[in-house]
Amino acid sequence: MEASNPEPRFTLSALAHDADCAGCWPESGDTLRVRLRCAAGEAARAEVCYRSLYDHVGPYRSVGMAMALSDGVSDVFEASLTLPDYRFRYYFRLTNRAGEDLYYTSDGAMDRPPEEGSCFFYPCINPADVPRAPEWAKGAMVYQIWTDRFFNADPRNDPPGTVPWGAPAGRGVEYGGDFAGIVCQAGYLKGLGVQAVYLNPVFASPSYHKYDTADYTRVEDCYGGGEGLKALVAALHGAGIRVILDAVFNHCSNRHPFFRDLVEKGAASRYRGWFLPRGFPVDEEAVNYDTFAGLVREMPRWNTANDGVIDYLCGVAEFWTREADLDGWRLDVADELNHRLLRRLRERLEAVKPDVLLLGEIWNHAHRYVTACQLHAVTNYKFRTAALDFALQKTGARDFWNAGQANRMYYRTSTYPLLMNLLGSHDTARFATLLGDRSAAVALCALLLAMDGMPMLYYGDEVLMEGGADPDNRRAMRWDLTQTPEAAEIRALMAFRGQSECLRKGSLRLVKAEGGLLAFSRETPGSRLVAAVNFGPEAGLETPGRQLLGNARTRVGRAELPRNGYGIWEDESWSG
Amino acid sequence: MEASNPEPRFTLSALAHDADCAGCWPESGDTLRVRLRCAAGEAARAEVCYRSLYDHVGPYRSVGMAMALSDGVSDVFEASLTLPDYRFRYYFRLTNRAGEDLYYTSDGAMDRPPEEGSCFFYPCINPADVPRAPEWAKGAMVYQIWTDRFFNADPRNDPPGTVPWGAPAGRGVEYGGDFAGIVCQAGYLKGLGVQAVYLNPVFASPSYHKYDTADYTRVEDCYGGGEGLKALVAALHGAGIRVILDAVFNHCSNRHPFFRDLVEKGAASRYRGWFLPRGFPVDEEAVNYDTFAGLVREMPRWNTANDGVIDYLCGVAEFWTREADLDGWRLDVADELNHRLLRRLRERLEAVKPDVLLLGEIWNHAHRYVTACQLHAVTNYKFRTAALDFALQKTGARDFWNAGQANRMYYRTSTYPLLMNLLGSHDTARFATLLGDRSAAVALCALLLAMDGMPMLYYGDEVLMEGGADPDNRRAMRWDLTQTPEAAEIRALMAFRGQSECLRKGSLRLVKAEGGLLAFSRETPGSRLVAAVNFGPEAGLETPGRQLLGNARTRVGRAELPRNGYGIWEDESWSG
Repeated sequence: MEASNPEPRFTLSALAHDADCAGCWPESGDTLRVRLRCAAGEAARAEVCYRSLYDHVGPYRSVGMAMALSDGVSDVFEASLTLPDYRFRYYFRLTNRAGEDLYYTSDGAMDRPPEEGSCFFYPCINPADVPRAPEWAKGAMVYQIWTDRFFNADPRNDPPGTVPWGAPAGRGVEYGGDFAGIVCQAGYLKGLGVQAVYLNPVFASPSYHKYDTADYTRVEDCYGGGEGLKALVAALHGAGIRVILDAVFNHCSNRHPFFRDLVEKGAASRYRGWFLPRGFPVDEEAVNYDTFAGLVREMPRWNTANDGVIDYLCGVAEFWTREADLDGWRLDVADELNHRLLRRLRERLEAVKPDVLLLGEIWNHAHRYVTACQLHAVTNYKFRTAALDFALQKTGARDFWNAGQANRMYYRTSTYPLLMNLLGSHDTARFATLLGDRSAAVALCALLLAMDGMPMLYYGDEVLMEGGADPDNRRAMRWDLTQTPEAAEIRALMAFRGQSECLRKGSLRLVKAEGGLLAFSRETPGSRLVAAVNFGPEAGLETPGRQLLGNARTRVGRAELPRNGYGIWEDESWSG
Repeated sequence: MEASNPEPRFTLSALAHDADCAGCWPESGDTLRVRLRCAAGEAARAEVCYRSLYDHVGPYRSVGMAMALSDGVSDVFEASLTLPDYRFRYYFRLTNRAGEDLYYTSDGAMDRPPEEGSCFFYPCINPADVPRAPEWAKGAMVYQIWTDRFFNADPRNDPPGTVPWGAPAGRGVEYGGDFAGIVCQAGYLKGLGVQAVYLNPVFASPSYHKYDTADYTRVEDCYGGGEGLKALVAALHGAGIRVILDAVFNHCSNRHPFFRDLVEKGAASRYRGWFLPRGFPVDEEAVNYDTFAGLVREMPRWNTANDGVIDYLCGVAEFWTREADLDGWRLDVADELNHRLLRRLRERLEAVKPDVLLLGEIWNHAHRYVTACQLHAVTNYKFRTAALDFALQKTGARDFWNAGQANRMYYRTSTYPLLMNLLGSHDTARFATLLGDRSAAVALCALLLAMDGMPMLYYGDEVLMEGGADPDNRRAMRWDLTQTPEAAEIRALMAFRGQSECLRKGSLRLVKAEGGLLAFSRETPGSRLVAAVNFGPEAGLETPGRQLLGNARTRVGRAELPRNGYGIWEDESWSG
């Protein structure tokens, strides 16, 4: 082998490049994006040398790599390679501060350029492997609505036993909120500036939460039924807002007729292969079948490897996408679904609506599911943990930043605008309650809204609604709180985010991370914004121009941020 | 964040675990295999701590990790985790020689056990994600035959212009070899002990090499046609030998009727979407369409993302698998095929024959293509490079070993028995020529045949046929050379490999790597063999028992290996 292990001018064990996954992906039909990881601070310069796989004589082209990520442990360099024949052979060259070179190849580290067989190969770009996502979704602000808890406009469809608005959010209570209520508040939503609304499940279900669907063909009457849904989508579209429904495809209700058939007919049921029974007869007392979370009798898990199930669930999503003109689906428990279902769903839905969004509920690293043929976007709960720890001063600005950088290392750069950052959801305690400080909560919203990705707010987050763990986090919307100064501040931030191309699409760069103060910039060719939050003692920041928003106090190029201070500045000298 | 960066008791930047790809895969419906990489030599002990994803209170179980790979730069630890509910939450604990602990989590390195949200998640094993491959193929010895060059039993089907057996192998010559010739030599093949024969392309084609198929429904008459193929498969099956055909699905001949239709009708052709034209009219002079290697007019590339193409090519493979009772397909240029074609092919062929083998021709890292739903096996050209360098004494035993270890880091452990190791093929110079030393060539064969993986020999390799680069590497079989002492030695090695469960299925472990001497063991519960080769000056080796094969000289527990020496010993004290 040509491989030799040079002296530790570089930490060889830290070097990593994977010609797959987040290490390498096609950006277009003729351009490849590649990443190289190395120990933090060791490489002063990195470049990638490449030529066509079938060119055995020509010189290698070379392109400098930019440091794209750094979490204090590792640095990640990135570059794009373009070849008209889209067949790549490449290797990396690293230079340290002493000017010494190291070559990194598919046969490891070398002290001179490799023979061509030791290069990395990307044998051919197939256009189907280029990650694609709907433009509207990149950086889009999303507002999550639990229909029953948002606004009750039509008392005629209230379910029996509806409790008064504002009654304690015990498990199973229903408040009577409906689609007509959301239509009624379309103006409010438009004012928030959100690009999309995501609705918790709406299909017929025996439970109040509706995560156990009994009939995918029927929308709950108490919400307004199928016609109500269509009217809602039309109204929101009229306000320029997209609509995403919850697709609970991992499991259904044990009252779903197919599961009833299985329980009744056992091994003779035509749905035998559609579920995951561990024996016959199917015994609902003993729960001898796979379920959501492994132990919930009422939620038998679909066998999402079964072709019948795949076709059935894809049909459901196709039907409602067409019927109600939906814009996307949030896949519940997406990381338990069979990959074939995800791929098929993507194909079939994109055939119905090319810019449909598939967003997965995933609580940890999700890179296995965000591929060119599966999900476009995922929930980013890692953001929530890091942001809450930062706001609670359990950690500092540098830790928050590094956590975000480390998380990004698992994803292709093209996925960053599609990581759905959230501060909470119907599954977590409200951040206002966790923080216990309204000014910190406003600053935290500023952080969420100024970052890249898809910021999501759970209904009421924008008015700092309180709530502990489920079910207390599911209280009816507090419309009274819309009149607080904090709600006005957050609405201003949201409205700004909603109309700012720079916040939606701009790149992200660290400006300062010191103690509790974090400042970062967002940049497009046309504009540059600097945003800062401070959860520590009052701190100062050099600022590039006019302050647009926030409680920071700016004077001639310098701002003071109090504890829980925040601000957004426009860099007026920016020329891209 | 809980993350803190402890002092460099460990090289933090070297730590890596990917809950995907080669970092983590399900071994069965309830067992997960996980890997952790760290800098070589730093961890004295590693364990993985795990519990069910939905268990928020119980203690974590813990299982020790074995050091599975080490290439001198990195160590890879592995372990299997079993949970009846197949939903995993886990983290790693490393202990260094000083007894200090480090925890590795989805939020990075920590100095204490993580909160549960910082664990890695494997949310659910879907049985479809368990890598599976036909048992017969694991460790199987494969013999590659270029039908025209192997044996001419039926002169009646010789193509016009057939040259005499033994004439120089100029480009395009034909020797008249046929299926009847292979049938005739079935006894010879059985004597070699091979488990499978892989045939270069056999479908109708205008070229001598037949890598440009003009008619996938017709087998070349000069080989014996479809009936001849069926008779050949039946004869080889009778000898206990499986048959693998070459599936040239990346491209076809420009004489293929579908491409002719495209050339004639241009944009109006119904095959417009089946190829990759860059404009109309399709111009064969200007080659304004994608081709094999980007520039070969005669080989237009299929658009393997097209559903029609996928269905057509799957149909071809299905038809011949059924019609001729084939056992597998070697996919030419597998790494340029669309992933959808590979997945569909796997599904459809396994429906026809559950233990069919899909083997890809891939010249570099192939992990992107060897997944639970794509290829089972791949060519391992990395083995060839490392083995030739070792035999030529460009590198030593340790380099060879480390190269193999580094290569394995890209693959799941379950893939090791399906890496098809080869010393050459119709695309490379013959190893006997490259080595220029017949005793070294025999020892190299011993290395190939004693290692794990699927050893492949290209017809004539076993008699040390000579040949430079294409077309010289494609000479007609030298039956006269079967009578040399070296050929007899290699046949003995092959016969031993063919009948040794231990060499086919046993695990691989390093015994000694010093200078030019490499010794390793192969172990099953029932037996242990030690194999050694020496490409350096005479060297000694402690041996565990009786010498079964080789030119080493063994005396009471010690062997002397001359330069180009080799041996295989049976460990008689082994008790699993």
